[in-house]
Amino acid sequence: MELLEEYIRKEGVVKTKDILKVDSFLNHKMDVALFNEIGKEFKRLFADEEITKILTIEASGIGIACITAQYFNVPVVFAKKSKTKNMSGDVYSSLVESFTHGKVCDVCVTKKYIDKEDKILIIDDFLALGNALNGLIDIVNQAEAKLAGCGIVIEKGFQKGGDILREKGYHIESLAIVDSMDPETGIVFRH
Amino acid sequence: MELLEEYIRKEGVVKTKDILKVDSFLNHKMDVALFNEIGKEFKRLFADEEITKILTIEASGIGIACITAQYFNVPVVFAKKSKTKNMSGDVYSSLVESFTHGKVCDVCVTKKYIDKEDKILIIDDFLALGNALNGLIDIVNQAEAKLAGCGIVIEKGFQKGGDILREKGYHIESLAIVDSMDPETGIVFRH
Repeated sequence: MELLEEYIRKEGVVKTKDILKVDSFLNHKMDVALFNEIGKEFKRLFADEEITKILTIEASGIGIACITAQYFNVPVVFAKKSKTKNMSGDVYSSLVESFTHGKVCDVCVTKKYIDKEDKILIIDDFLALGNALNGLIDIVNQAEAKLAGCGIVIEKGFQKGGDILREKGYHIESLAIVDSMDPETGIVFRH
Repeated sequence: MELLEEYIRKEGVVKTKDILKVDSFLNHKMDVALFNEIGKEFKRLFADEEITKILTIEASGIGIACITAQYFNVPVVFAKKSKTKNMSGDVYSSLVESFTHGKVCDVCVTKKYIDKEDKILIIDDFLALGNALNGLIDIVNQAEAKLAGCGIVIEKGFQKGGDILREKGYHIESLAIVDSMDPETGIVFRH
Protein backbone atom coordinates (compact mmCIF):
# COMPACT_ATOMS: atom_id res chain seq x y z
CA MET A 1 0.00 0.00 0.00
CA GLU A 2 1.81 3.02 -1.35
CA LEU A 3 0.32 5.64 1.03
CA LEU A 4 1.36 3.52 4.02
CA GLU A 5 4.90 3.06 2.70
CA GLU A 6 5.11 6.84 2.28
CA TYR A 7 4.05 7.33 5.91
CA ILE A 8 6.62 4.76 7.08
CA ARG A 9 9.42 6.34 5.04
CA LYS A 10 8.52 9.87 6.13
CA GLU A 11 7.54 9.39 9.77
CA GLY A 12 8.94 6.01 10.77
CA VAL A 13 12.18 5.82 12.71
CA VAL A 14 14.49 2.83 12.28
CA LYS A 15 16.00 2.55 15.77
CA THR A 16 17.93 -0.68 15.14
CA LYS A 17 17.80 -3.43 12.52
CA ASP A 18 14.89 -4.89 14.57
CA ILE A 19 12.97 -1.90 15.92
CA LEU A 20 10.84 0.38 13.76
CA LYS A 21 9.08 3.20 15.56
CA VAL A 22 5.83 4.26 13.91
CA ASP A 23 4.23 5.77 16.98
CA SER A 24 3.63 9.13 15.30
CA PHE A 25 0.80 7.69 13.21
CA LEU A 26 0.10 4.04 14.04
CA ASN A 27 0.43 2.95 17.65
CA HIS A 28 0.61 5.88 20.04
CA LYS A 29 -0.57 8.94 18.12
CA MET A 30 -3.05 7.50 15.63
CA ASP A 31 -3.83 9.03 12.24
CA VAL A 32 -7.48 8.09 11.87
CA ALA A 33 -7.66 9.36 8.27
CA LEU A 34 -4.87 6.89 7.39
CA PHE A 35 -6.70 4.18 9.38
CA ASN A 36 -9.69 4.70 7.07
CA GLU A 37 -7.50 4.11 4.01
CA ILE A 38 -6.12 1.00 5.75
CA GLY A 39 -9.67 -0.20 6.45
CA LYS A 40 -10.68 0.27 2.81
CA GLU A 41 -7.62 -1.65 1.65
CA PHE A 42 -8.37 -4.56 4.00
CA LYS A 43 -11.93 -4.59 2.62
CA ARG A 44 -10.55 -4.75 -0.93
CA LEU A 45 -8.09 -7.54 -0.04
CA PHE A 46 -10.67 -9.64 1.82
CA ALA A 47 -13.63 -8.81 -0.45
CA ASP A 48 -14.12 -12.48 -1.34
CA GLU A 49 -14.18 -13.68 2.25
CA GLU A 50 -17.31 -13.80 4.33
CA ILE A 51 -16.48 -12.13 7.65
CA THR A 52 -18.72 -12.08 10.74
CA LYS A 53 -16.28 -10.66 13.29
CA ILE A 54 -12.92 -8.95 13.56
CA LEU A 55 -10.55 -10.20 16.25
CA THR A 56 -7.61 -8.13 17.46
CA ILE A 57 -5.41 -7.80 20.54
CA GLU A 58 -5.02 -4.87 22.89
CA ALA A 59 -3.86 -2.22 22.71
CA SER A 60 -2.60 -0.91 19.40
CA GLY A 61 -4.68 -3.24 17.24
CA ILE A 62 -7.96 -1.88 18.58
CA GLY A 63 -8.12 1.43 16.73
CA ILE A 64 -7.25 -0.10 13.36
CA ALA A 65 -9.71 -2.94 13.95
CA CYS A 66 -12.60 -0.60 14.85
CA ILE A 67 -12.07 1.66 11.83
CA THR A 68 -11.71 -1.39 9.56
CA ALA A 69 -14.87 -2.97 11.02
CA GLN A 70 -16.90 -0.11 9.55
CA TYR A 71 -16.10 -1.41 6.04
CA PHE A 72 -17.21 -4.94 6.93
CA ASN A 73 -20.22 -3.99 9.11
CA VAL A 74 -19.16 -6.40 11.82
CA PRO A 75 -18.30 -6.09 15.52
CA VAL A 76 -14.76 -6.24 16.90
CA VAL A 77 -13.57 -8.47 19.73
CA PHE A 78 -10.25 -7.64 21.31
CA ALA A 79 -8.22 -10.20 23.21
CA LYS A 80 -7.16 -8.98 26.63
CA LYS A 81 -3.65 -9.31 27.96
CA SER A 82 -4.66 -9.81 31.57
CA LYS A 83 -7.77 -11.03 33.27
CA THR A 84 -9.77 -8.21 34.88
CA LYS A 85 -12.37 -8.22 37.65
CA ASN A 86 -15.04 -7.78 35.00
CA MET A 87 -14.12 -10.86 32.98
CA SER A 88 -16.15 -14.01 33.38
CA GLY A 89 -14.40 -17.25 34.22
CA ASP A 90 -15.17 -18.84 30.91
CA VAL A 91 -12.42 -17.72 28.53
CA TYR A 92 -10.29 -19.01 25.70
CA SER A 93 -6.67 -18.22 26.46
CA SER A 94 -3.28 -18.58 24.84
CA LEU A 95 0.23 -17.73 26.03
CA VAL A 96 1.87 -14.99 23.95
CA GLU A 97 5.40 -13.63 24.21
CA SER A 98 5.57 -9.91 23.48
CA PHE A 99 8.58 -8.72 21.51
CA THR A 100 7.90 -5.06 22.42
CA HIS A 101 7.21 -5.57 26.12
CA GLY A 102 9.71 -8.39 26.64
CA LYS A 103 7.36 -10.59 28.65
CA VAL A 104 4.95 -13.49 28.30
CA CYS A 105 1.27 -12.90 28.92
CA ASP A 106 -1.91 -14.88 28.88
CA VAL A 107 -4.18 -13.55 26.16
CA CYS A 108 -7.90 -14.08 26.84
CA VAL A 109 -11.23 -13.87 25.03
CA THR A 110 -14.54 -14.54 26.80
CA LYS A 111 -15.95 -17.69 25.19
CA LYS A 112 -19.39 -16.37 24.32
CA TYR A 113 -17.93 -13.68 22.04
CA ILE A 114 -16.57 -16.15 19.46
CA ASP A 115 -18.36 -19.29 18.39
CA LYS A 116 -18.22 -21.96 15.72
CA GLU A 117 -20.53 -20.00 13.40
CA ASP A 118 -18.02 -17.14 13.24
CA LYS A 119 -15.81 -16.33 10.26
CA ILE A 120 -12.99 -14.34 11.77
CA LEU A 121 -10.74 -11.71 10.27
CA ILE A 122 -7.75 -11.07 12.56
CA ILE A 123 -6.37 -7.52 12.41
CA ASP A 124 -3.15 -6.33 14.03
CA ASP A 125 -0.67 -3.49 13.62
CA PHE A 126 2.55 -5.55 13.46
CA LEU A 127 3.63 -9.04 12.46
CA ALA A 128 7.18 -10.01 13.33
CA LEU A 129 7.84 -13.48 14.77
CA GLY A 130 4.08 -14.11 14.69
CA ASN A 131 3.66 -14.65 18.44
CA ALA A 132 0.55 -12.51 18.85
CA LEU A 133 -0.95 -13.83 15.62
CA ASN A 134 -0.32 -17.46 16.63
CA GLY A 135 -2.04 -16.76 19.96
CA LEU A 136 -5.07 -15.27 18.21
CA ILE A 137 -5.21 -18.14 15.70
CA ASP A 138 -5.03 -20.57 18.63
CA ILE A 139 -8.07 -18.83 20.17
CA VAL A 140 -10.00 -18.99 16.86
CA ASN A 141 -9.22 -22.73 16.70
CA GLN A 142 -10.27 -23.29 20.32
CA ALA A 143 -13.60 -21.65 19.47
CA GLU A 144 -13.87 -23.89 16.36
CA ALA A 145 -14.55 -20.75 14.35
CA LYS A 146 -13.38 -20.32 10.77
CA LEU A 147 -10.31 -18.15 10.22
CA ALA A 148 -11.07 -16.14 7.09
CA GLY A 149 -7.74 -14.33 7.09
CA CYS A 150 -5.27 -12.05 8.85
CA GLY A 151 -4.79 -8.39 7.93
CA ILE A 152 -1.57 -6.83 9.16
CA VAL A 153 -0.51 -3.21 8.76
CA ILE A 154 3.28 -3.67 8.90
CA GLU A 155 5.07 -6.99 8.59
CA LYS A 156 8.75 -7.35 9.42
CA GLY A 157 9.43 -9.75 6.56
CA PHE A 158 12.92 -10.58 7.86
CA GLN A 159 11.49 -12.05 11.08
CA LYS A 160 9.70 -14.84 9.15
CA GLY A 161 6.49 -15.10 11.23
CA GLY A 162 4.42 -14.16 8.18
CA ASP A 163 6.21 -16.46 5.76
CA ILE A 164 5.81 -19.46 8.09
CA LEU A 165 2.07 -18.79 8.46
CA ARG A 166 1.65 -18.38 4.67
CA GLU A 167 3.41 -21.72 4.14
CA LYS A 168 0.84 -23.27 6.48
CA GLY A 169 -1.88 -22.02 4.11
CA TYR A 170 -3.26 -19.05 6.04
CA HIS A 171 -4.52 -16.04 4.08
CA ILE A 172 -2.20 -13.32 5.40
CA GLU A 173 -2.30 -9.82 3.88
CA SER A 174 0.24 -7.27 5.05
CA LEU A 175 -0.13 -3.72 3.75
CA ALA A 176 3.61 -3.06 4.00
CA ILE A 177 6.33 -5.71 4.28
CA VAL A 178 9.75 -4.54 5.45
CA ASP A 179 12.35 -6.92 4.05
CA SER A 180 15.24 -5.16 5.75
CA MET A 181 15.94 -1.97 7.61
CA ASP A 182 18.95 -0.17 8.94
CA PRO A 183 19.28 3.10 10.87
CA GLU A 184 21.81 4.34 8.29
CA THR A 185 20.59 3.02 4.94
CA GLY A 186 16.84 2.99 5.65
CA ILE A 187 14.06 0.59 4.74
CA VAL A 188 13.70 -1.92 1.91
CA PHE A 189 10.08 -2.91 1.23
CA ARG A 190 9.04 -6.19 -0.39
CA HIS A 191 7.05 -5.68 -3.62
CA MET B 1 -28.29 9.11 25.35
CA GLU B 2 -31.35 6.93 24.98
CA LEU B 3 -29.88 4.32 22.61
CA LEU B 4 -26.97 3.78 24.99
CA GLU B 5 -29.27 3.40 28.01
CA GLU B 6 -31.24 0.81 26.03
CA TYR B 7 -28.03 -1.13 25.31
CA ILE B 8 -27.03 -0.96 28.99
CA ARG B 9 -30.48 -2.13 30.19
CA LYS B 10 -30.64 -4.90 27.60
CA GLU B 11 -27.07 -6.18 27.50
CA GLY B 12 -25.41 -4.86 30.66
CA VAL B 13 -25.02 -7.14 33.66
CA VAL B 14 -25.06 -5.66 37.16
CA LYS B 15 -22.67 -8.00 38.98
CA THR B 16 -22.63 -6.11 42.29
CA LYS B 17 -23.63 -2.60 43.40
CA ASP B 18 -20.20 -1.49 42.06
CA ILE B 19 -19.54 -3.62 39.00
CA LEU B 20 -21.41 -3.21 35.71
CA LYS B 21 -20.38 -5.54 32.89
CA VAL B 22 -20.89 -4.07 29.43
CA ASP B 23 -18.35 -6.21 27.65
CA SER B 24 -20.88 -7.48 25.10
CA PHE B 25 -20.89 -4.11 23.30
CA LEU B 26 -18.44 -1.64 24.85
CA ASN B 27 -15.15 -2.99 26.16
CA HIS B 28 -14.46 -6.52 24.97
CA LYS B 29 -16.81 -7.17 22.08
CA MET B 30 -17.29 -3.75 20.53
CA ASP B 31 -20.41 -2.67 18.64
CA VAL B 32 -18.89 -0.31 16.11
CA ALA B 33 -22.32 0.85 14.82
CA LEU B 34 -23.12 2.00 18.38
CA PHE B 35 -19.66 3.62 18.61
CA ASN B 36 -20.59 5.72 15.59
CA GLU B 37 -23.73 6.96 17.35
CA ILE B 38 -21.57 7.69 20.43
CA GLY B 39 -19.11 9.62 18.26
CA LYS B 40 -21.90 11.72 16.72
CA GLU B 41 -23.28 12.50 20.17
CA PHE B 42 -19.86 13.62 21.46
CA LYS B 43 -19.57 15.84 18.38
CA ARG B 44 -22.98 17.37 19.18
CA LEU B 45 -22.09 17.90 22.85
CA PHE B 46 -18.68 19.45 22.12
CA ALA B 47 -19.72 21.29 18.95
CA ASP B 48 -18.77 24.66 20.47
CA GLU B 49 -15.29 23.55 21.51
CA GLU B 50 -12.28 23.78 19.25
CA ILE B 51 -10.56 20.38 19.41
CA THR B 52 -7.15 19.55 17.91
CA LYS B 53 -6.59 16.12 19.42
CA ILE B 54 -8.40 13.35 21.29
CA LEU B 55 -6.60 11.78 24.25
CA THR B 56 -7.61 8.41 25.67
CA ILE B 57 -6.08 5.58 27.65
CA GLU B 58 -5.50 1.99 26.65
CA ALA B 59 -7.19 -0.32 26.11
CA SER B 60 -10.95 0.06 26.02
CA GLY B 61 -10.94 3.81 25.33
CA ILE B 62 -9.10 3.41 22.04
CA GLY B 63 -11.92 2.10 19.85
CA ILE B 64 -14.41 4.72 21.02
CA ALA B 65 -11.79 7.46 20.64
CA CYS B 66 -10.88 6.45 17.07
CA ILE B 67 -14.49 6.26 15.88
CA THR B 68 -15.26 9.59 17.61
CA ALA B 69 -12.16 11.22 16.06
CA GLN B 70 -13.75 10.78 12.62
CA TYR B 71 -16.42 13.34 13.58
CA PHE B 72 -13.81 15.88 14.74
CA ASN B 73 -11.23 15.20 11.99
CA VAL B 74 -8.42 15.01 14.53
CA PRO B 75 -5.84 12.38 15.50
CA VAL B 76 -6.03 10.28 18.66
CA VAL B 77 -3.25 9.84 21.21
CA PHE B 78 -3.59 7.01 23.67
CA ALA B 79 -1.79 6.99 27.00
CA LYS B 80 0.11 3.76 27.61
CA LYS B 81 -0.05 1.85 30.84
CA SER B 82 3.53 0.63 30.70
CA LYS B 83 6.66 1.83 29.01
CA THR B 84 7.60 -0.29 26.00
CA LYS B 85 10.91 -0.78 24.22
CA ASN B 86 9.63 1.47 21.45
CA MET B 87 8.86 4.45 23.68
CA SER B 88 11.30 7.34 23.83
CA GLY B 89 12.58 8.52 27.18
CA ASP B 90 10.81 11.83 26.98
CA VAL B 91 7.32 11.20 28.34
CA TYR B 92 4.67 12.82 30.49
CA SER B 93 3.55 10.36 33.11
CA SER B 94 1.04 10.13 35.91
CA LEU B 95 0.28 7.42 38.46
CA VAL B 96 -3.20 5.92 38.05
CA GLU B 97 -4.93 3.35 40.23
CA SER B 98 -7.12 1.01 38.22
CA PHE B 99 -10.41 0.00 39.81
CA THR B 100 -10.90 -2.87 37.33
CA HIS B 101 -7.37 -4.27 37.48
CA GLY B 102 -6.78 -3.55 41.16
CA LYS B 103 -3.29 -2.10 40.69
CA VAL B 104 -1.43 1.17 40.28
CA CYS B 105 0.29 1.90 37.00
CA ASP B 106 2.31 4.65 35.47
CA VAL B 107 0.41 6.11 32.53
CA CYS B 108 2.66 7.64 29.85
CA VAL B 109 2.39 9.87 26.77
CA THR B 110 5.42 10.72 24.63
CA LYS B 111 5.95 14.47 25.03
CA LYS B 112 6.05 15.38 21.37
CA TYR B 113 2.50 14.12 20.81
CA ILE B 114 0.84 16.77 22.99
CA ASP B 115 1.94 20.38 23.15
CA LYS B 116 0.77 23.74 24.40
CA GLU B 117 -1.01 24.55 21.14
CA ASP B 118 -3.30 21.55 21.61
CA LYS B 119 -6.95 21.70 22.61
CA ILE B 120 -7.65 18.28 24.01
CA LEU B 121 -10.85 16.28 24.23
CA ILE B 122 -10.38 13.34 26.60
CA ILE B 123 -12.51 10.27 25.76
CA ASP B 124 -12.94 7.20 27.94
CA ASP B 125 -15.40 4.36 28.35
CA PHE B 126 -15.96 4.64 32.12
CA LEU B 127 -15.80 7.27 34.84
CA ALA B 128 -16.08 6.04 38.41
CA LEU B 129 -13.74 7.50 41.03
CA GLY B 130 -12.05 9.54 38.30
CA ASN B 131 -8.60 8.01 38.68
CA ALA B 132 -7.89 7.50 34.98
CA LEU B 133 -9.43 10.86 34.10
CA ASN B 134 -7.36 12.67 36.73
CA GLY B 135 -4.23 11.03 35.34
CA LEU B 136 -5.08 12.14 31.79
CA ILE B 137 -5.92 15.68 32.99
CA ASP B 138 -2.58 15.75 34.83
CA ILE B 139 -0.82 14.86 31.54
CA VAL B 140 -2.73 17.61 29.65
CA ASN B 141 -1.65 20.08 32.35
CA GLN B 142 1.98 18.93 32.24
CA ALA B 143 1.92 19.56 28.48
CA GLU B 144 0.40 23.03 29.13
CA ALA B 145 -2.28 22.12 26.58
CA LYS B 146 -5.87 23.33 26.90
CA LEU B 147 -8.41 20.82 28.15
CA ALA B 148 -11.52 21.40 26.03
CA GLY B 149 -13.58 18.72 27.77
CA CYS B 150 -14.03 15.10 28.74
CA GLY B 151 -16.46 12.75 27.00
CA ILE B 152 -17.36 9.62 28.93
CA VAL B 153 -19.58 6.79 27.75
CA ILE B 154 -20.77 5.50 31.15
CA GLU B 155 -20.38 7.35 34.43
CA LYS B 156 -21.01 5.65 37.75
CA GLY B 157 -22.64 8.69 39.32
CA PHE B 158 -22.62 7.16 42.79
CA GLN B 159 -18.81 7.03 42.82
CA LYS B 160 -18.55 10.84 42.65
CA GLY B 161 -15.47 11.18 40.42
CA GLY B 162 -17.54 13.04 37.82
CA ASP B 163 -19.31 15.33 40.27
CA ILE B 164 -16.02 16.37 41.88
CA LEU B 165 -14.50 17.19 38.48
CA ARG B 166 -17.62 19.17 37.44
CA GLU B 167 -17.39 21.18 40.68
CA LYS B 168 -13.82 22.04 39.72
CA GLY B 169 -15.21 23.54 36.50
CA TYR B 170 -14.28 20.90 33.95
CA HIS B 171 -16.63 20.31 31.01
CA ILE B 172 -17.56 16.66 31.55
CA GLU B 173 -20.20 15.01 29.36
CA SER B 174 -21.28 11.47 30.19
CA LEU B 175 -23.64 9.78 27.75
CA ALA B 176 -25.19 7.65 30.50
CA ILE B 177 -24.95 8.29 34.25
CA VAL B 178 -25.81 5.40 36.54
CA ASP B 179 -27.02 6.84 39.86
CA SER B 180 -27.48 3.45 41.45
CA MET B 181 -27.54 -0.18 40.48
CA ASP B 182 -28.37 -3.46 42.10
CA PRO B 183 -28.22 -7.04 40.80
CA GLU B 184 -31.85 -7.53 41.85
CA THR B 185 -33.59 -4.24 41.23
CA GLY B 186 -31.53 -3.07 38.21
CA ILE B 187 -30.19 0.31 37.15
CA VAL B 188 -31.36 3.86 37.91
CA PHE B 189 -30.08 6.42 35.41
CA ARG B 190 -29.66 10.15 36.18
CA HIS B 191 -31.77 12.37 33.89
